[in-house]
Amino acid sequence: MNEDYNQNVKKLVEMMEGVRVCMLITREKDSEDLSGRPMNVSKIDNDGTVWFFTKASSPKAAEIEESTKVSIAIANENSNNYLMIHGSAILVNDKIKMKELWNPILKAWFPLGLDDPDMSLIKVMPHEVNFWDSSSSKMVVLFNILKAIVIGKEYEEGEHGKIIL
Amino acid sequence: MNEDYNQNVKKLVEMMEGVRVCMLITREKDSEDLSGRPMNVSKIDNDGTVWFFTKASSPKAAEIEESTKVSIAIANENSNNYLMIHGSAILVNDKIKMKELWNPILKAWFPLGLDDPDMSLIKVMPHEVNFWDSSSSKMVVLFNILKAIVIGKEYEEGEHGKIIL
Repeated sequence: MNEDYNQNVKKLVEMMEGVRVCMLITREKDSEDLSGRPMNVSKIDNDGTVWFFTKASSPKAAEIEESTKVSIAIANENSNNYLMIHGSAILVNDKIKMKELWNPILKAWFPLGLDDPDMSLIKVMPHEVNFWDSSSSKMVVLFNILKAIVIGKEYEEGEHGKIIL
Repeated sequence: MNEDYNQNVKKLVEMMEGVRVCMLITREKDSEDLSGRPMNVSKIDNDGTVWFFTKASSPKAAEIEESTKVSIAIANENSNNYLMIHGSAILVNDKIKMKELWNPILKAWFPLGLDDPDMSLIKVMPHEVNFWDSSSSKMVVLFNILKAIVIGKEYEEGEHGKIIL
């Protein structure tokens, strides 16, 4: 855990701060196919760990039990926030952690609240983070994003980087 | 090609109409890892085919040559547009098609214009489309999105569906 590592994680946490919804991508059981769905980000820890609530009986929970490899895709045109995170996921059935992350809005899906026996957490530990962002004007950002994609170079008025965690 | 099929494709085209940037996910060469990057959508045809411009020498072009399996992730919080598309991709080196899809903004990445020998098109033919959208208010949408995700049911004030093309 050197200084670069800490800086990279800090950057990731900053980029994730405004993200409410992302696409969580898992591997389908018994196939090479992918499966993705929008998920509400419950929390990102200071070490980069991302937390989601899920039904323990959901297909995605079964998929994570089968293969821990997951990806998180964020592509927000409005905020020019583009992130592709690859990592390992596990299901966590820790009631203390659930209580810590609990938000009243979750009652809509867990009417029993924290007593719901089908509640579980998905904990994603990122291994690799690719990002494309910029604080410059939209037009320049679009230019730079595409430049970064197509040419694979850092773009001038934003940043394009690959964080290895 | 029955009526349902046509309706499904029409729905997909409608949902893609406002999308400028999506995350294009490919399989990394010689590994099971995924690779994703934001891409500008050049066009979606009436039959659901999605087109992108790329450098023929880019890693993603090599990845598509190795494995045609790709996914497109769209997760736009602001427009509440959530789409996960799985399909097959091929590289297309058809100058007539490039001319048809050409947009002056592309000059930034292809200064030689249509004469650039490293220009190629990525053609994605969707097989499966998952979507979560809604025309209702944001709060209700957030509720419904999560409900759809977690419980896997259709949500009341929006739509959650799986289109098999």
